[in-house]
Amino acid sequence: MTDTLYTGISLLVTPHPGPQRGRAMRELTVLEDAALLVSGERIRWVGHRADAPGAANERDLGGVAVVPGLVDPHTHAVWAGDRLADFEARVEGVPYETLLARGGGIRSTMRATAAASEEELARLALPRLEALQHSGATTIEVKSGYGLDFDAELRMLQAAYFAETEFVGDVVRTLLVHVPPTEGRAEYVRAVCEELIPEVAEDNLAQAVDVFCEKEAFSVAETRAILEAARVYGLATKLHADQFHAIGGTELACEVGALSVDHLEASGPAQIAALAASSTVATVLPGVTLHLGLPTAPARALVDAGACVAVGTDLNPGSSPVFSSQLALALAVRLCGLTPAEALTACTVNAAAALGLSDRGALVPGARADFLALHSADWRDLAYTLGVSPVRGVYVGGQPVKETPL
Amino acid sequence: MTDTLYTGISLLVTPHPGPQRGRAMRELTVLEDAALLVSGERIRWVGHRADAPGAANERDLGGVAVVPGLVDPHTHAVWAGDRLADFEARVEGVPYETLLARGGGIRSTMRATAAASEEELARLALPRLEALQHSGATTIEVKSGYGLDFDAELRMLQAAYFAETEFVGDVVRTLLVHVPPTEGRAEYVRAVCEELIPEVAEDNLAQAVDVFCEKEAFSVAETRAILEAARVYGLATKLHADQFHAIGGTELACEVGALSVDHLEASGPAQIAALAASSTVATVLPGVTLHLGLPTAPARALVDAGACVAVGTDLNPGSSPVFSSQLALALAVRLCGLTPAEALTACTVNAAAALGLSDRGALVPGARADFLALHSADWRDLAYTLGVSPVRGVYVGGQPVKETPL
Repeated sequence: MTDTLYTGISLLVTPHPGPQRGRAMRELTVLEDAALLVSGERIRWVGHRADAPGAANERDLGGVAVVPGLVDPHTHAVWAGDRLADFEARVEGVPYETLLARGGGIRSTMRATAAASEEELARLALPRLEALQHSGATTIEVKSGYGLDFDAELRMLQAAYFAETEFVGDVVRTLLVHVPPTEGRAEYVRAVCEELIPEVAEDNLAQAVDVFCEKEAFSVAETRAILEAARVYGLATKLHADQFHAIGGTELACEVGALSVDHLEASGPAQIAALAASSTVATVLPGVTLHLGLPTAPARALVDAGACVAVGTDLNPGSSPVFSSQLALALAVRLCGLTPAEALTACTVNAAAALGLSDRGALVPGARADFLALHSADWRDLAYTLGVSPVRGVYVGGQPVKETPL
Repeated sequence: MTDTLYTGISLLVTPHPGPQRGRAMRELTVLEDAALLVSGERIRWVGHRADAPGAANERDLGGVAVVPGLVDPHTHAVWAGDRLADFEARVEGVPYETLLARGGGIRSTMRATAAASEEELARLALPRLEALQHSGATTIEVKSGYGLDFDAELRMLQAAYFAETEFVGDVVRTLLVHVPPTEGRAEYVRAVCEELIPEVAEDNLAQAVDVFCEKEAFSVAETRAILEAARVYGLATKLHADQFHAIGGTELACEVGALSVDHLEASGPAQIAALAASSTVATVLPGVTLHLGLPTAPARALVDAGACVAVGTDLNPGSSPVFSSQLALALAVRLCGLTPAEALTACTVNAAAALGLSDRGALVPGARADFLALHSADWRDLAYTLGVSPVRGVYVGGQPVKETPL
């Protein structure tokens, strides 16, 4: 295990480790003329260059800003088919119901995904993971949820696992219970709890279970039953909630101690208060706002109330074709009113907390050595730049996976 | 002059040549299994692969969609300094007036630009032009306008010329009369007309003159005088108008036959009607809407009324740090309600018309061989994809300037 000292860091910027709530999201540690000592996959020391210990290797990053690698806590990066015809029809004014009646919408993604093998799904997912990583993501969550049946759900998770083995970065898999059947709901929920979740847990196919709790999807009672089964089988829990209607999913997530509740576009004062009083992370997804023109989640109000807010791409073909975690961060500033510092915290330590991870997202001794070197010496370029990558180098576990020439 | 036949084009998509108005913006020519014959810098033949004439060389693009190179008709790509502190302060709620009082705002860009040499300004501009080109732009307009005095304006145009000589693509230079002096306005306008414009014309430093016609900038009467001087010296004309207030700039632009009027966020029915009845191009800039959260121009209403609409990045450090013409196109769909076909037309033939160019933007015989090969076989990916480039290859005058491996 050779130590490497990274130098040429004009500015090292990091949130404090662990989830940050409310105004603490703005409190960054800023070190000028810094150095970072990496031992194996971990950071051993961080400080001023002049105080740095010796190391077998030294790598000069060229006088740029360094920030933690981004964590993308919410993607649906495994899918087959495309939604380009839906996209075009929607912007021409065709209602979603008409698209569904034409065979489009989410069911078309489910059919295409069901028709693809695990290998094919993994082959399709890998460049998406690489695009996210190119933009700065060093840990990426991937959900199932487009399965027409349990077998297809398991194949999606298997595909995420296959893609992960080819990918130099961390993938966190989540079983998403997404689309209820048109009939036999009670039996479906029972089978999710008694068959699907146990199998996923036994085969270690996912680290968490997520449920789409919404008027058109699963009720609060159904969601509660599924989350309880997840708990019994040792899986963490998450929710898609308040996307269109605040039917109680957020309150349930806070009550049961879910890692995160995601979307929140329809959250009101009661849901904001519940999140501010709980340790459940509020994950907002500004790509959906940009792509569909729907309302944005009240991220500013959540931070001001003291909640722990994270940001994700929600990469998926229907509602967020956002292949960049940096763009999600930049959109969180423009569309959700977060400051650059809050957005950095939301995309690093808080996003890690949304995945139950406490060993990354902050550049402190003991943490994973996942970090980014920017093109410039001012870290705020990460939030400011639109349409081109401000990230020059991506380092995972202390090793470079992308390095653009200076 | 060797002929090259480009094959492996699963779909060739192009607007009709020349500016397209209203619903005609949706009418694309779509050829399946196509080929493109390039002779020198021009297209000699376009048609089905099976009908293609022979050529000395053949290049297989690998079975992807091909569209015309994008034209970015509105950038301020020459500047020094940065506006990161302004950006951070603004999202933290500091009013623009306070930023100005602190020494920030546009005057800070003007000071930094004035302090830089032509060579330094060109060195800063070149990677911005390259980023735009990487995203698909093969012709890029660059404005002056940050000069503290005439000498600084001339140096900005000279810098754009220097950058152009290093850049494999076309740059079109525009003299922008942007910021009125705090005193001596009449004398300033007279000097613009009698000294600056003649010098720019004589030294061929710009192809057009643009004026910021706005309550806080130049009045309609002042603008009219400057545009008249431009006409006398053989320069084309453009306007920044209706950005905050519709004071009559759009009507003036239509009356004098300006190439384009740009911004239009405050345009109402009268301005839309004027543009629909004129040959002046209406250029909208959705990057400003995203970056500043200001209202968007009524692009949908302009198209529906029959106007000729173009889209630009407005790349500049204060109001639109958008380094991608593809992102501007994608934002025009999300924020302005254009269809993908209309957005393609807006970013190609209509943007060319906004620069007075009729030899590009459509893939037809005789046109410049400026085209893009996408990563996919569906051209709509150009409008759909966010956060990663859907452009695999950029070809300028028939030559590849970017080719990502398949």
